[in-house]
Amino acid sequence: MLRAQGRAVHQCDSGWVPVFVDQEQKVSLMSVGFLLEKPDEAVVWRGPKKNALIKQFVSDVAWGQLDYLVVDTPPGTSDEHMAAVEALRPYSPLGAIVVTTPQAVSVGDVRRELTFCRKTGLRVIGIVENMSGFVCPHCTECTNVFSRGGGEELARHAGVPFLGSVPLDPKLTRSLEEGRDFIQEFPHSPAFQALSAIAQKVLEAPAQLS
Amino acid sequence: MLRAQGRAVHQCDSGWVPVFVDQEQKVSLMSVGFLLEKPDEAVVWRGPKKNALIKQFVSDVAWGQLDYLVVDTPPGTSDEHMAAVEALRPYSPLGAIVVTTPQAVSVGDVRRELTFCRKTGLRVIGIVENMSGFVCPHCTECTNVFSRGGGEELARHAGVPFLGSVPLDPKLTRSLEEGRDFIQEFPHSPAFQALSAIAQKVLEAPAQLS
Repeated sequence: MLRAQGRAVHQCDSGWVPVFVDQEQKVSLMSVGFLLEKPDEAVVWRGPKKNALIKQFVSDVAWGQLDYLVVDTPPGTSDEHMAAVEALRPYSPLGAIVVTTPQAVSVGDVRRELTFCRKTGLRVIGIVENMSGFVCPHCTECTNVFSRGGGEELARHAGVPFLGSVPLDPKLTRSLEEGRDFIQEFPHSPAFQALSAIAQKVLEAPAQLS
Repeated sequence: MLRAQGRAVHQCDSGWVPVFVDQEQKVSLMSVGFLLEKPDEAVVWRGPKKNALIKQFVSDVAWGQLDYLVVDTPPGTSDEHMAAVEALRPYSPLGAIVVTTPQAVSVGDVRRELTFCRKTGLRVIGIVENMSGFVCPHCTECTNVFSRGGGEELARHAGVPFLGSVPLDPKLTRSLEEGRDFIQEFPHSPAFQALSAIAQKVLEAPAQLS
């Protein structure tokens, strides 16, 4: 998505140098993908090996001075999540952004993730509802492909902030496929507006007292 | 999805009795969900505990005589997948059905899953492309929400059968949400037609020589 595939991670005195994805070096990345010899290689690792790498990604990467460190995890409440929470605890993380899709099956999974956050003492910054309706580019009618409102209802039920809904937007997925700059090209698209509003709310979330 | 939430698993002489979801007792289920005290409970388990349960789900459930045992895994190539492959090996499984969505990011993940199957000696029955286009119920125009054709191209590239594409269908998701019988109510919907054709191809897949 960030056109960084095939880029190499170098070693410096203070650890691995992350991959910069923009010329201004504002966004740096680290991923297991950069450490594989071939992009098709399967990472057939059991928990302990994954946990060790997640720890290294926090402690052994020369991140420098960061405004935000974003950790994108798979869904669930397993090794990766426990390892990330443990590795980040000394840095008093701001919290978790929990993403759901609108349908009941997905909301059920996310409810368990909220329980996980509570159990591990991780604050929930808020809930985002993704794939929330599809505006047909031919007739501009909106269809709720996966029902609607599950995320907002869950946030209310759990007593955590609702950050917003992101609609399915073919312009966004096409931009990602074709390596085009969605932000520059489609600033008026509904998905862009929704994502900006969510980012703004996250920036305004008060820092956790450590 | 199968309206089995909250059902209990009982113990008999030959092990756990699976949950039957239909009156004819044609479909039986086992899930960690049945073993939790509360549906919101997070299953915060590391690999070894998950692996042990997956093994038990194969060996300690009184499955009886089955035509097919379908194991639905999360995406990826980690503990759950290794545990399932190892637990099923003595039974010479027919193989894996690999599901992707059309966009390049997802196809990349699935390429690594194909490598996993090759490494572990699991045959790939074929690839399914899910969320493959959306037919607007208002104007009947089809939009490729997430681009299109990635699954078919991947199958050709990997030399494995392509089983078919399943479109996004609000009728299907709504039926699942409302507990209605999609098969009975919408036999002419595009998603039903696609799913039937895929099931037919899987039934015709020759059994693996053990």
